[in-house]
Amino acid sequence: MKARIHVSLKPGVLDPQGKAILGALESMGFDGVQDARQGKLIELDLDDDTDADTARARVDDMCRRLLANTVIEKYTIDLEG
Amino acid sequence: MKARIHVSLKPGVLDPQGKAILGALESMGFDGVQDARQGKLIELDLDDDTDADTARARVDDMCRRLLANTVIEKYTIDLEG
Repeated sequence: MKARIHVSLKPGVLDPQGKAILGALESMGFDGVQDARQGKLIELDLDDDTDADTARARVDDMCRRLLANTVIEKYTIDLEG
Repeated sequence: MKARIHVSLKPGVLDPQGKAILGALESMGFDGVQDARQGKLIELDLDDDTDADTARARVDDMCRRLLANTVIEKYTIDLEG
């Protein structure tokens, strides 16, 4: 089973990487870009011996305890397979 | 129009962040995780005055010139709206 976790900054939190991308694109002559945000996409290969609900609960626990700083970040979990 | 760009390491390229995540999960007692990989997810808000093909070509150019190091990274582009 594969878990895809998208970790991104909560709305209102300053995104310096996004701002850096936006500035660089503009300085390179790419107009028409209104905003840019950068997050993390973490892919986990999990053993297949658990059901989807159990796997989702475990991955959620991994996010809360390690993969996301829930003070400033939010996350979504997609399970495949 | 929104572009979602997933930048990830090419197969075979060492992923130190992925290995660090894997090691940390194991040391925290999360078993059953076979592998972990970390990539970037960049979201761009684009002006709506271009058609999808033109927008895709421009975002591809942004990826080649700035957003991805195509020597060790690959990327996918999803357009929405």
